[in-house]
Amino acid sequence: MKMWEDYIRKVVPYVPGEQPQGDLVIKLNTNENPYPPAPGVLKALREMDPDQFRRYPDPSASLLTKALADRYGLPQDQIFVGVGSDDVLGMAFLTFFNSQKPILFPDITYSFYPVWADLFKIPYETPALDHGFCVDPKDYRRENGGIVLANPNAPTGIYLPIDKVEDMVRWNQDSVVIVDEAYIDFGGQSARSLIDRYENLLVVQTFSKSRSMAGMRIGFAMGSQKLIKALQDVKYSYNSYTMDYPSVILGAEAVKDETYFCQTVAKIVKTREEGKRRFTEMGFSCTDSQTNFLFVSHKKAPARAIFEALRQERIYVRYFAAPRLEDHLRVSIGTDEEMETLYRFLEKELPNLSLR
Amino acid sequence: MKMWEDYIRKVVPYVPGEQPQGDLVIKLNTNENPYPPAPGVLKALREMDPDQFRRYPDPSASLLTKALADRYGLPQDQIFVGVGSDDVLGMAFLTFFNSQKPILFPDITYSFYPVWADLFKIPYETPALDHGFCVDPKDYRRENGGIVLANPNAPTGIYLPIDKVEDMVRWNQDSVVIVDEAYIDFGGQSARSLIDRYENLLVVQTFSKSRSMAGMRIGFAMGSQKLIKALQDVKYSYNSYTMDYPSVILGAEAVKDETYFCQTVAKIVKTREEGKRRFTEMGFSCTDSQTNFLFVSHKKAPARAIFEALRQERIYVRYFAAPRLEDHLRVSIGTDEEMETLYRFLEKELPNLSLR
Repeated sequence: MKMWEDYIRKVVPYVPGEQPQGDLVIKLNTNENPYPPAPGVLKALREMDPDQFRRYPDPSASLLTKALADRYGLPQDQIFVGVGSDDVLGMAFLTFFNSQKPILFPDITYSFYPVWADLFKIPYETPALDHGFCVDPKDYRRENGGIVLANPNAPTGIYLPIDKVEDMVRWNQDSVVIVDEAYIDFGGQSARSLIDRYENLLVVQTFSKSRSMAGMRIGFAMGSQKLIKALQDVKYSYNSYTMDYPSVILGAEAVKDETYFCQTVAKIVKTREEGKRRFTEMGFSCTDSQTNFLFVSHKKAPARAIFEALRQERIYVRYFAAPRLEDHLRVSIGTDEEMETLYRFLEKELPNLSLR
Repeated sequence: MKMWEDYIRKVVPYVPGEQPQGDLVIKLNTNENPYPPAPGVLKALREMDPDQFRRYPDPSASLLTKALADRYGLPQDQIFVGVGSDDVLGMAFLTFFNSQKPILFPDITYSFYPVWADLFKIPYETPALDHGFCVDPKDYRRENGGIVLANPNAPTGIYLPIDKVEDMVRWNQDSVVIVDEAYIDFGGQSARSLIDRYENLLVVQTFSKSRSMAGMRIGFAMGSQKLIKALQDVKYSYNSYTMDYPSVILGAEAVKDETYFCQTVAKIVKTREEGKRRFTEMGFSCTDSQTNFLFVSHKKAPARAIFEALRQERIYVRYFAAPRLEDHLRVSIGTDEEMETLYRFLEKELPNLSLR
C-alpha cells in the first residue's frame, strides 16, 4: 500500500435505491412522482436555445430563486438552490456543523444524515423514535452542535405537528436546526412559516417528489439571510456554477404552474389514502403517512419475502435490512393502475408468503 | 452574535468572471467557446423525453462515462464525472488531501485551488513560477501532501511539456498528483498517457471549453481504478445523483462527434495564433498560450486602463488585481469577427491609453 492511500478519506457511501430499466417494470422504490412534470416544462424544453450551452450559467441561478421567492413570498436572498436536496443538505452540514458537540437526528430517518456526518467528521447522536415511530421533541433538549429533522420523516412517513417542530427550534436557539421537508407538499404544514421568527432555522425542500423533477436535480433551502449567505459563501468556495442552464430554466417553469402542482399532489394523496385502506384490509399495519409513500408491515408475511416476491414480478418496493425496519416495506405511491396491480398480486400471494 | 454563528465555516469564496447580458456584448472574459455545441447535442435536446425527468437519473451516469471511455480508450471504472471540473477538483481535494503535510501548487495558477484548500482546511504552499511564468518541476521535489498542476496553466496559458509533468509525478509517488487539463485540447499532450504507469496520477478535464458546454456543467477525471473508486465513494457519500438527466444524455452526444470537435478546436487555435501576431504588432508581450485565451501585457498602456476602456465599449476581458498579474489581461479567443472588433478598438485607443 502506497503512502497516498493512507490519506484517502474513509467513508461508507450511501446506497441509492435500485434503478431497474424497462417499460414493464412497476417502480415503487425511490419515491418518484408517477406523473410527468408541468406542461410548461415540456414547452420550455422544446424552446430551449442550445447555443446558450456554450456559456457559463448564471452562478446565482437567479431565474430559479426568483420563481421560488415569488411562490413562497420570500426575498430572493432567503433562498438557496442546489443539485438536489442532497447537495443542499450536504452543503448545510459542511457549513453549519463545525462545533465539537454532537449533532442530533433520530435513529430512524433519512439514512444519508450519518453518511454526511462521517464524511465531514461531525460527531452525532441519534435519539430513538418511540414505539410508534414518533419523534419526541424532549429528546432534543440537550447540548448539541446542530439538529436535523426530516418532516414528514422517512421511511416512516410520519409528520411531526408544526407546534412540536417549533418547540424543538425554540429550545435550540444556539444551534442551527435543519428541517428536511422533502415530502411536506403531500401533507402537513411547512416550517417555512417559522423562519421569520427563528434565525437558526433552515428549511430544505426538493423538486424530486412533488414537482416530478428527480431527473433534473433541484433542491432548495429557505432561511434567514444569515444562514443563506453562509451557504452561498460555501457554495462559491466549492463550485461557482452548480445549477446547469436547463435546470434553471426548467425548474423555474415547474414552479410557475401552481394549478398543475396542486392537481398532481391531490391525485397522489387520494391514491395514498386508498392505499392505506387496501393495505390494512390485507392485514398490514400502516403508519399514517403524510408523504408519497406508505410504510407497511404485515402481521404474518415477512417483509423480505414480500419484497422478493414482488421483485420477481418486476414490482420494485424498498426493503431496509436495518434494526427496527426489517419488518417493514416502503412503497412509493404510483398511479392508480400501478397500485391496483400491486394489490392484486399481494391479495393472491400473501397466503403463500405468510408464516403459519 | 448567536452561538451557532461561531460554528459557521469561515471561507473567502472564489469570484467568478462577470456574466454581462445582452446581444451587443463581446464576451472574452470567461474562456467560453465562441462556437455552439456539436449538432448531435441539439438533436438529442429536441428529442429528449421530459417524462424521464420524474425519474432519478442513473447515479453512475453510465451513458456519459461509456462515451468518454470509448473516446479515450479507457475502461469505464477509470473515469469519474462531476458537475463541471470544479466539482471534480473540489471532490478530489476532499478525497485525497487528508495528510497534515502541505499540498503544493504554483503561486500563479487557477485561483480556486487555495479556496478549496481553505474550505477543507488543507495546508498549502505555493512555489513561485519563474520570471517567464514557467513551472520548475524541481520546486516540487520536497515533502508534500499532494500536488496540483494546471497544464496548460491559467491565466498564463503556458504548457509544461509532458516529460516535465512525468518528472513531477515520478518524484512524488507518495502523493496524489492532480493535473488539471481544462485547456489541454487546445495544445499540448495530455497526461492521460501516463495514468497506466502512475497509480497516483489524476487527470481532470472539462466540457466547458473545447466542447462548448459550460452551461451544462460537465467535468471528468481519468486515473487508476484506485483513485476513481475513492472519488466515487466520496461522491456517493455526498450526493448520489450529481449528473442530471440532460447532462448525461447531451454530454454523451457531445463526445461522440469527433469531427466537429476537431474542427472547432482547429478554428480556435488558428484565431489564437493570429491573435498572438496582432497583439505583438500592437506592442503587447504575449505568452505562447496553448489554450483558448491569450495572456498579454502592453509595454506602455496599463492593463487596468485597457480593461476599463474595453468594458466601456462592452468588450469584456479578464483583469486580475493580484501580485505579478496586475500588468496583464486575459483575453478569451472569440470568433474572428469578435477579435477583429477588439483589435480595431485597441489600435485606435492604445495611443490614448499609453503613459508617456
